[in-house]
Amino acid sequence: MKASIATTSVPISLGDRSYSILIGENLISTPSTWLGLSKAACALIVTNETIAPLYASKLKSALEPLYERVMVLSLPDGEGYKTFETLNLIFDQLLGSGADRKTVLFALGGGVIGDMTGFAAACYMRGVPFVQVATTLLAQVDSSVGGKTAINHPMGKNMIGAFYQPELVVCDLDTIQTLPQRELSAGLAEIIKYGPIADMDFLDWIEEHLDALIAKEPQALAYAVQRSCEIKAAVVGADEREGGVRATLNFGHTFGHAIEAGLGFGVWLHGEAVGCGMVMAAHLSHQLGLVELSFVQRLTRLVVRAGLPVQGPKLGAPEYLEHMRVDKKAQNGQIRFVLIDKPGHAVVMGAQDSLVTSVIEQCCL
Amino acid sequence: MKASIATTSVPISLGDRSYSILIGENLISTPSTWLGLSKAACALIVTNETIAPLYASKLKSALEPLYERVMVLSLPDGEGYKTFETLNLIFDQLLGSGADRKTVLFALGGGVIGDMTGFAAACYMRGVPFVQVATTLLAQVDSSVGGKTAINHPMGKNMIGAFYQPELVVCDLDTIQTLPQRELSAGLAEIIKYGPIADMDFLDWIEEHLDALIAKEPQALAYAVQRSCEIKAAVVGADEREGGVRATLNFGHTFGHAIEAGLGFGVWLHGEAVGCGMVMAAHLSHQLGLVELSFVQRLTRLVVRAGLPVQGPKLGAPEYLEHMRVDKKAQNGQIRFVLIDKPGHAVVMGAQDSLVTSVIEQCCL
Repeated sequence: MKASIATTSVPISLGDRSYSILIGENLISTPSTWLGLSKAACALIVTNETIAPLYASKLKSALEPLYERVMVLSLPDGEGYKTFETLNLIFDQLLGSGADRKTVLFALGGGVIGDMTGFAAACYMRGVPFVQVATTLLAQVDSSVGGKTAINHPMGKNMIGAFYQPELVVCDLDTIQTLPQRELSAGLAEIIKYGPIADMDFLDWIEEHLDALIAKEPQALAYAVQRSCEIKAAVVGADEREGGVRATLNFGHTFGHAIEAGLGFGVWLHGEAVGCGMVMAAHLSHQLGLVELSFVQRLTRLVVRAGLPVQGPKLGAPEYLEHMRVDKKAQNGQIRFVLIDKPGHAVVMGAQDSLVTSVIEQCCL
Repeated sequence: MKASIATTSVPISLGDRSYSILIGENLISTPSTWLGLSKAACALIVTNETIAPLYASKLKSALEPLYERVMVLSLPDGEGYKTFETLNLIFDQLLGSGADRKTVLFALGGGVIGDMTGFAAACYMRGVPFVQVATTLLAQVDSSVGGKTAINHPMGKNMIGAFYQPELVVCDLDTIQTLPQRELSAGLAEIIKYGPIADMDFLDWIEEHLDALIAKEPQALAYAVQRSCEIKAAVVGADEREGGVRATLNFGHTFGHAIEAGLGFGVWLHGEAVGCGMVMAAHLSHQLGLVELSFVQRLTRLVVRAGLPVQGPKLGAPEYLEHMRVDKKAQNGQIRFVLIDKPGHAVVMGAQDSLVTSVIEQCCL
């Protein structure tokens, strides 16, 4: 029998909205994981049709001693379903079953389920508690911290949402073992991201342990999740509502969102778009004289090794620019990019359309 | 020329979400009303097709010196339109025009416009500033304080929403002069409410000045709006997210919501349902031995004088009970009522179905 790894807890300090992220193995089935949550008569597990057969009954069994009723709602799987229509299925379930305003919502899934369930919790009767059980690497290292919840609008990704903090986030590393390799790579994109913007020692560690991460070794996964959450927690703790430094977490996301919107949400995984977007943003940083070409090349090699695309789809620069202008960081039509001004540090700034166009032409097939 | 009354400002103290309510005449056209708001390139006035011809261009002119672009969106009028579909028209307008996340939303209208615009502001890009220009008496004395925003769901009123505070509330008493008498009466219901739950001196004042209020005398309106806001501000300041005492502001609303839901939203005005609901809740308080019959009779006389119904529609007790069980105050299927335990003080408690049924049978035509 393999040696099990110790469970770690990363505290997210946000005043009366503070909570913990638990990282470890077999957490879903361990009763102590669920102690200390809000008391309620009713709990609703929101999941999707891919995750439900794997973990829904396991989580339901674990929660049944704590609530009179534990309901499960399985939604269709994919970014394309992160819409108001799907969100409304959660409200229909809650209202149809007479769920009161103490009801606890459990998001069992990846980023899409977490974003929608969190937003449903923020809005149902003006706010009920929620708990995130993140089953993808991307959700564990990104949406687990910071309370961003949202749905997409046909005119833009994550345009309708709320800042709403969970009561607890559970990162059960066992769920990564069933994750398709393509989604594992997508999660690696957000892990890699923390290096250039905040911590070059972590980038060194990732380069050294990338093969172990791709092989899903629990010890490596545990550290990658923990360190990612710690870095994100420090940034979010300083700027919960994204007045300033929090925007640097969007490194790779401005180009990435344009790729997702241009191809139609769900064609590329979010992490794939972010991986490619980071390479494009690194090129733009270099074009502006902020970093050496060797840094761009180093990042590009790592993104390739992680199994992620480094060439964007050929949508044409005008379409990229159009999508980027509706990015939430844009101000009065001016696109603002997260750029690396030295390895381990990011800035948010504008760039001339002509320069952005040349980067797009250079980086897209 | 009539003597103009002094503008008063009621402070709403909610930490970093504090704001002021301005009460006075001709406020929309007075430039100083609008100083001190968040800077932005763009403003969107959300109003309805009834209010737009009266005040939209006046407000637009007042705001044009402050923003590069001031847009107006006119929605259909009525509680029946407080739906996701109408809410989405606001998002379509914002995204279609490239409005960024500093855009200020102005709600120009009554409670429905305020609730929807406030919720849109809470959700658009996870939160943009909003300002409420309340043009009905009900909105001035009720939704102006407390940051409750919401839309209706087919299965319940105000079920999807957020607590989200405005930057400023403007109660221009001139707008009451164009208010239909039926809507004035609806506003009086919420004013009367503050007496039984919090301030019997104010109830005395209302009894004395009801004719002046019905005649829309500005001095009387100004005091009624100011005192109502002060009482509500004290309650909300003590309990912003309705953990306890704030629920007492729902006096008359449990029965009232059942009337609105049972008849279909918009058949009775919200204030009409609340007026009748207060009489029913007073009867229930009396049945439980909490208040004298004379108190019930005094309240009933005042509600009648205000031009409001005191007999509910004959939906049958089972239908009333069914609607009341989805009330947000209900816990695990148990209906909780706001009752008067002594004149000027309210409690939140349950009551036996048999007793509630007898009150419904007594109070419904």
